[in-house]
Amino acid sequence: MSTAPSSTAPPRLPSRSQRSGSAKTSPVRDLLALTERPEVISFAGGLPAPELFDVEGIRAAFDAALDSPGVLQYSTSEGDPKLREEVARRYTADGLPTTASDLIITTGSQQALGLISTTLLDPGDTILVEEPCYLAALQTFALAGARVVGVPYVGDDLDLEALERLAVEHHPKFFYTVPTFQNPTGRTHDLEARRAIAAIAQRRGFRIVEDEPYRQLRYSGDALPSLAELAPDHVIGLGSFSKVIAPGLRIGWIRTTADIHSSVTIAKQAADLHTSTIDQAAAAHYLVSGRGEPALARILAAYAARRDAMLQALPSTLPDGSTWNRPDGGMFVWARLPEGMDATSSLASALTRDVAFVPGSSFFSGRPDARTLRLSFTTYSPARIREGLSRLGATWGAGR
Amino acid sequence: MSTAPSSTAPPRLPSRSQRSGSAKTSPVRDLLALTERPEVISFAGGLPAPELFDVEGIRAAFDAALDSPGVLQYSTSEGDPKLREEVARRYTADGLPTTASDLIITTGSQQALGLISTTLLDPGDTILVEEPCYLAALQTFALAGARVVGVPYVGDDLDLEALERLAVEHHPKFFYTVPTFQNPTGRTHDLEARRAIAAIAQRRGFRIVEDEPYRQLRYSGDALPSLAELAPDHVIGLGSFSKVIAPGLRIGWIRTTADIHSSVTIAKQAADLHTSTIDQAAAAHYLVSGRGEPALARILAAYAARRDAMLQALPSTLPDGSTWNRPDGGMFVWARLPEGMDATSSLASALTRDVAFVPGSSFFSGRPDARTLRLSFTTYSPARIREGLSRLGATWGAGR
Repeated sequence: MSTAPSSTAPPRLPSRSQRSGSAKTSPVRDLLALTERPEVISFAGGLPAPELFDVEGIRAAFDAALDSPGVLQYSTSEGDPKLREEVARRYTADGLPTTASDLIITTGSQQALGLISTTLLDPGDTILVEEPCYLAALQTFALAGARVVGVPYVGDDLDLEALERLAVEHHPKFFYTVPTFQNPTGRTHDLEARRAIAAIAQRRGFRIVEDEPYRQLRYSGDALPSLAELAPDHVIGLGSFSKVIAPGLRIGWIRTTADIHSSVTIAKQAADLHTSTIDQAAAAHYLVSGRGEPALARILAAYAARRDAMLQALPSTLPDGSTWNRPDGGMFVWARLPEGMDATSSLASALTRDVAFVPGSSFFSGRPDARTLRLSFTTYSPARIREGLSRLGATWGAGR
Repeated sequence: MSTAPSSTAPPRLPSRSQRSGSAKTSPVRDLLALTERPEVISFAGGLPAPELFDVEGIRAAFDAALDSPGVLQYSTSEGDPKLREEVARRYTADGLPTTASDLIITTGSQQALGLISTTLLDPGDTILVEEPCYLAALQTFALAGARVVGVPYVGDDLDLEALERLAVEHHPKFFYTVPTFQNPTGRTHDLEARRAIAAIAQRRGFRIVEDEPYRQLRYSGDALPSLAELAPDHVIGLGSFSKVIAPGLRIGWIRTTADIHSSVTIAKQAADLHTSTIDQAAAAHYLVSGRGEPALARILAAYAARRDAMLQALPSTLPDGSTWNRPDGGMFVWARLPEGMDATSSLASALTRDVAFVPGSSFFSGRPDARTLRLSFTTYSPARIREGLSRLGATWGAGR
């Protein structure tokens, strides 16, 4: 075969996919890179506190896992049977009867979002999300080519009439919700709202994707029933050990409904064959070791104190006329600056004082509210939180 | 809000996605389930031999990894910097200059196929594959909505004229190839074929996705340059530790070209944020420990003996008129039964004699060759291979 004459320019390489252009790198993660200087106190990340990880318990679990012959071999796409049994047992104890066969282990719950998208969405399909919404979910839905419609809040409550109206108007494939201690807002749908959301889904015939990474991080108030309890056929549940054991393990799961279980399994197989066999086995050993409960109790006690430190300092931190919520759990407080202020320009001056947060604008699927910001309270000690918020207050001439 | 009157049937749930229907569960994996009875000698799977895994070396690597403070925390989407450096060093030593910044760590190379699809393919785009082709790649491309066109072989050689003709006709986004010890055929593109493939890609302006999970499993013959060496701007490389360390770790990577690096990173972030931090750190510790080289030498010696045992027994196993190849490495021998025979019906009778293989039909994107079959030689000792092939020979009235 002859080569092209040298006077002819070689053909250009094919372009990237259109959907590849639809997703941008996460501003939160780009920001994390900017705030990596050790002198910065960053309320921007959503990082669990590493000093609370049960490293020795996890080490023992990996050691035990490596005694099993199959732990380094290929495994089934659905995941480690023992791990699924342990997760199922915890759901059942939490009031939601579940068996191992309802569960598919995923490489973190981020992957679960992708598998649900593959299973349920064709390009152009519409879904509903809370407005604002977890950023990496928006990114995944964008890569799937979904049309994303935000359901607004009225104050701290989801606008249930808007949910029903938008469902009727758009026939969404699903409504994506983080019902408990939401990222970014820390908001929780109360019992009445949960019942209404479940009833609307049943009445209007859409699914609910219920993402619960923070459910176990409750510091006050009573546990609420999951949406899956209220509308079992309509709800696909997502869970994760990232916030209660450690994110580095990348262990999440999908609690499927029977009608999609085999399709999700196929999507999982195509995605990465299966999640790390050894990490799954270690997680299963850790769960049966009984070390998880005291470790979680330590996490809850520490995070409760950190939340309280933040809530106590916020009145003297944020400019007069600001509002914020008081979450019963999770990792985040959501605040809103007074009329005329802009959180992104505030961040620029905060960074000069070595303190950071995330402007809320990043989390909106539609028109952003430029006055909002997200503050994470889990990463630092109460004293360091007070120091950070004092710096932040100085940004606004507060810090009184 | 009122509920619907009880006489009205509740609306049906939204259907699954169309693309979800386009992928079937892997027949190979379904078959693996069927052959799990311990009395079955299965040449069907593509499993590395677990007794050759360096469990103690890997245990030491996990132990060392757990001494690092960040190992249980969230990490960057591109992957562990030390691991990327070690992988880059190995590429460079292999004749392909590479830096850590060219690499993105993936959750096995299966995930790499998905990320490449997300980055390069919109539904309806055409790609070229070898015919037959790695099954799980076909599955991933189907989920991406790709139109897959197979490039035929002439004997054991890829039909290079067909490759060029199909490229001109279809303007493919890429040509997917496993150039060394291919799955399922064990075939390797020789130097001349590699040069021709690289030149055709440059002349016709398509990318090459060069999947190299078996490259290091060479038992005879000389190493060949990678396609990335011959057409650096056109080739995206995929690699994996599944066959040389252990598949349970789920560590693979993409060697990107500069023009797609950030898009692949975004796709990776959306897919699962990042691969298990602890598995990546353990892999990096293992690579620098120096234990990998002697462990690989043990694997190569064992697999070479297993390949030889299979090749020695095949003449008395397969029916007269069968053909098969003699691969210089990898895990598979590809055989073709005589005119008029069918591998799938042979499998049914083989299973009654407690022996299994994979009919080749599964691996074709277009019209399957029903006479072909894939035999894996890595899982068993030479004696067990001889016993299995003797059972298989009896299936055809051979086993003389």
